[in-house]
Amino acid sequence: MSLDDKATKPHDRLAQALAAEMDAVNALIRDRMSSEHAPRIPEVTAHLIEAGGKRLRPMLTLAAAKVCGYEGPYHVHLAATVEFIHTATLLHDDVVDESTQRRGRPTANLLWDNKSSVLVGDYLFARSFQLMTEANNMRVLNILANASAVIAEGEVLQLTAAQDLATTPATYLKVIRGKTAALFSAATEVGGVLAGAHENAVRALHDYGDALGIAFQMADDLLDYGGASAQIGKNTGDDFRERKLTLPVIKAVAAASAEERAFWVRVIEKGDQREGDLEEALRLMRLHGTLEATRDEALAWGNRARASLNALPAHPLRDMLSDLAEYVVARMK
Amino acid sequence: MSLDDKATKPHDRLAQALAAEMDAVNALIRDRMSSEHAPRIPEVTAHLIEAGGKRLRPMLTLAAAKVCGYEGPYHVHLAATVEFIHTATLLHDDVVDESTQRRGRPTANLLWDNKSSVLVGDYLFARSFQLMTEANNMRVLNILANASAVIAEGEVLQLTAAQDLATTPATYLKVIRGKTAALFSAATEVGGVLAGAHENAVRALHDYGDALGIAFQMADDLLDYGGASAQIGKNTGDDFRERKLTLPVIKAVAAASAEERAFWVRVIEKGDQREGDLEEALRLMRLHGTLEATRDEALAWGNRARASLNALPAHPLRDMLSDLAEYVVARMK
Repeated sequence: MSLDDKATKPHDRLAQALAAEMDAVNALIRDRMSSEHAPRIPEVTAHLIEAGGKRLRPMLTLAAAKVCGYEGPYHVHLAATVEFIHTATLLHDDVVDESTQRRGRPTANLLWDNKSSVLVGDYLFARSFQLMTEANNMRVLNILANASAVIAEGEVLQLTAAQDLATTPATYLKVIRGKTAALFSAATEVGGVLAGAHENAVRALHDYGDALGIAFQMADDLLDYGGASAQIGKNTGDDFRERKLTLPVIKAVAAASAEERAFWVRVIEKGDQREGDLEEALRLMRLHGTLEATRDEALAWGNRARASLNALPAHPLRDMLSDLAEYVVARMK
Repeated sequence: MSLDDKATKPHDRLAQALAAEMDAVNALIRDRMSSEHAPRIPEVTAHLIEAGGKRLRPMLTLAAAKVCGYEGPYHVHLAATVEFIHTATLLHDDVVDESTQRRGRPTANLLWDNKSSVLVGDYLFARSFQLMTEANNMRVLNILANASAVIAEGEVLQLTAAQDLATTPATYLKVIRGKTAALFSAATEVGGVLAGAHENAVRALHDYGDALGIAFQMADDLLDYGGASAQIGKNTGDDFRERKLTLPVIKAVAAASAEERAFWVRVIEKGDQREGDLEEALRLMRLHGTLEATRDEALAWGNRARASLNALPAHPLRDMLSDLAEYVVARMK
């Protein structure tokens, strides 16, 4: 590995190693997001897909299949399936969260309307199921159908847990396992299943995706408060304003004095947020060390992801997946 | 057939003949609408499902399978699949249409919120895919995945065609084929495929469902204007107020004088609706005979549905399906 390679982010190295397949995935996505009768569908989809997401999930599927020696064409279909499920979820999430920005651009619900986002999301879900049937593998279908149900369940759980100070770390783990890790673990697991890998390898791929997804979401939730050092940037505090019970807050609430608890009740449960409240929230998180504790949990999940890979055959892509697990948590520092 | 049987509606006779299987379908629906982690999901689903819809679509699947001699257990799974897809669609439709009433009760988006309706709908879509994989039949999966895509496409097309006076009868047919007939034809077709029926029978079942769905939706759209006799009731004019381009309006616009066209531009395109406008719309529809013309088209589709059944083996359920096709259009009179 040259110095140059070392300087590249793990995500970019994966993209380089999978460049030909990712071109095929992107071509398939463009082909399947079309609609004979309703031009609104490709308009809305292209707005989101061409905004340049990281394509992390389809790369996981491609890498998992190749690490297990797959040489057929259908990992491309499953990678596109996974990206369609992800895109459909984003469209619906932005409606549910009433978001106005995504990937640095106005959201589809803002540019068009909520109706278009709901219905185009439904279309992409249906397209994802069409795509996955093409691999003609019942076990793959089961994994992806189950993941879709778990994702929706996680989103509903997040909705009902929002603003509820009684939310426990266990509930938080269920939410992020659902809304994030379920698609990561399905993405990697189906790669192994498609390749006809040994059960140990399939299980290892599932566990890698699960732990990677959890680490990824914990890091995201920590970064929303500026990371472990709580550096406030332009996107800091979105979760605070939306009154989401993420791990740094859950831990701060659990450690709160009576007076601190009154603060959390006011800003999260009652939604009465005033000038300086985000700073006060950060002060309490620092006081109780909840940002560092969240970082430590994310690092532990990242390590668990890396350890899972030991059950897989040696392969350059396996090493990149390992580096990726290190990278998603290194973002926090 | 006793006098008593003759007096019963075809829909009720089907329900009677399929009572044992429908009990199994309802039990399966209750089982699969549950969620280990998110109680909001069964709450929202039960509100809609237990409001007592007609369960027309699952009965079509059961009847189609039995007419073709199916004796296994999976027609029950596919019937529940079809009802889940339908229920998910209703939840999302009510968000898109901002509806407040469904089956005589307040809609879920009103009782809970749009967020719950979107996410619970997603959950039911995912559950429907889990259910359909249990039948372990790739062709069935393809039919239902395709139908889901066509339904969403039809809904998007309806959204973009709304308020557009240039909408043609051909576009209208695409919209209702998508939003309504696609699930009817998939419901009947998968019954035949599951039963391993001859290709002619499978095609006949598809054509029956397609024509029945079109007749059903045309009748609905006509009834929204009070039927061919334009009798105004409490639910008359919903489509008019929502500025939907349904067949009676499309035909009236096509036949409009310059002055009449100005009226349609004002009430449909500009949405400037005043006291007496619905009555004026009805007067123009009567003037150009568009209510009768819509009724005639619906009757023709009903007849086409009945004729399709000739390719199927003789069976009491086949006769009930035939009566059903007569009944859905007889509602218009």
